[in-house]
Amino acid sequence: MEPYRHKVKYYECDPMGVVHHSNYVRFMEEARVEMMDRLGFGYERMEAEGVISPVLSLTCKFLRPAHFQEVVEISVRLSSSTAMKVSFAYEMRVEGNVVMTAESTHCFLENGRPVSLEKRFPEFFAVLSELR
Amino acid sequence: MEPYRHKVKYYECDPMGVVHHSNYVRFMEEARVEMMDRLGFGYERMEAEGVISPVLSLTCKFLRPAHFQEVVEISVRLSSSTAMKVSFAYEMRVEGNVVMTAESTHCFLENGRPVSLEKRFPEFFAVLSELR
Amino acid sequence: MEPYRHKVKYYECDPMGVVHHSNYVRFMEEARVEMMDRLGFGYERMEAEGVISPVLSLTCKFLRPAHFQEVVEISVRLSSSTAMKVSFAYEMRVEGNVVMTAESTHCFLENGRPVSLEKRFPEFFAVLSELR
Amino acid sequence: MEPYRHKVKYYECDPMGVVHHSNYVRFMEEARVEMMDRLGFGYERMEAEGVISPVLSLTCKFLRPAHFQEVVEISVRLSSSTAMKVSFAYEMRVEGNVVMTAESTHCFLENGRPVSLEKRFPEFFAVLSELR
Repeated sequence: MEPYRHKVKYYECDPMGVVHHSNYVRFMEEARVEMMDRLGFGYERMEAEGVISPVLSLTCKFLRPAHFQEVVEISVRLSSSTAMKVSFAYEMRVEGNVVMTAESTHCFLENGRPVSLEKRFPEFFAVLSELR
Repeated sequence: MEPYRHKVKYYECDPMGVVHHSNYVRFMEEARVEMMDRLGFGYERMEAEGVISPVLSLTCKFLRPAHFQEVVEISVRLSSSTAMKVSFAYEMRVEGNVVMTAESTHCFLENGRPVSLEKRFPEFFAVLSELR
Repeated sequence: MEPYRHKVKYYECDPMGVVHHSNYVRFMEEARVEMMDRLGFGYERMEAEGVISPVLSLTCKFLRPAHFQEVVEISVRLSSSTAMKVSFAYEMRVEGNVVMTAESTHCFLENGRPVSLEKRFPEFFAVLSELR
Repeated sequence: MEPYRHKVKYYECDPMGVVHHSNYVRFMEEARVEMMDRLGFGYERMEAEGVISPVLSLTCKFLRPAHFQEVVEISVRLSSSTAMKVSFAYEMRVEGNVVMTAESTHCFLENGRPVSLEKRFPEFFAVLSELR
């Protein structure tokens, strides 16, 4: 799958002249949402069915800074999945150089209670596995 | 009433080393929310009653930049009110110097329909007038 | 010129489920930067020459809310220009419906002193006029 | 040392009605900056000396959501330090309940080259150790 592309905005940069580290966490979400969309299982669809997907944890490594107007190419893949949790791995590149790698782990809640993605949305679970 | 105080965060500053202009719009909201709170009519209370208060318009004048770690003192007053709309005027100062002035206009919606603040929340309307 | 397109991100939406009003100010900047870029006079180029372009004022009217995943089409045109200031007018649409209109006014500073865009960057000034 | 307190802003909350996870990364920075300040070694002072302190990595665990108007109490301590890197551990609580724990690792750069905090700023290094 083609990486998701995010062009760095002026308001995403800090006084050091580089992307503020908190914004990479937002890019991760953008890329994850877009990938789901491309796989035909958009976030709105899940929310419309009353399921939300909070972030349980994340890990980020910052290797190089990204700058205003640079295009960050973000690849997302499923790194692990259990009955109740899925984890995604991210790699962000600018002109081929890795600027950041990350991982996020999510659960799925319906009416405030954890649900198994595999049981609740088997079609989505199958689709997600394609991201591995 | 004492001005609301906001200490500028690193992540609120841009590559020019000053507060990004979009963030002043957030400071306006912060100050407005805090003032309502102090007057005993918090935003949560209005939302709990099913009323939301979208921003209809805003005008901002940026006079001087504010910098990281500076304390912005924000005063808010009611600048005008009609049956269906209220406007607030803001003045932001750093060490006594005005850095920004602004105005915002709001309506009130219940079940997606405009309501008169004066009729729906007479107590709140009275309290707001103290901000004039 | 084709409008600039911004797809609404999840993190740009607030508890009312719509784009937080402060983010439209960011979209204005994005669209302005992109237009300059397309006209061959990018923001980096101006900054590389030691000229910065602070926002002096802005006016925004919010007509309808925009939602997560909607594509906001933003058109920018030069609304007025004098020796020392330029103003841009913005119109944002979602599926053809206007969601927001705005105007921003800017000056140009070199070594902290105002410069005439027309004298300092005649080529840029000519290009800008094409946005009218 | 007293925890740093951050009152949750409306614009920090997402359509789920809770603090967007990316904002906790900003709260971490706020708390870290404030702690340095209280210890007499503010971020501006380090930057004035030409030293910057990029984030190398971070790890976050999200345990409970925080909501609009809640006060997040953030404690920061030095979790480890070597010649070239320091790591901070964070714990965030709302009304006594842990909502999030995190760790961040930083290096120090002068003219783009890594410097030993212990050698370059022995006084600061000593002060930091008090946060352990």
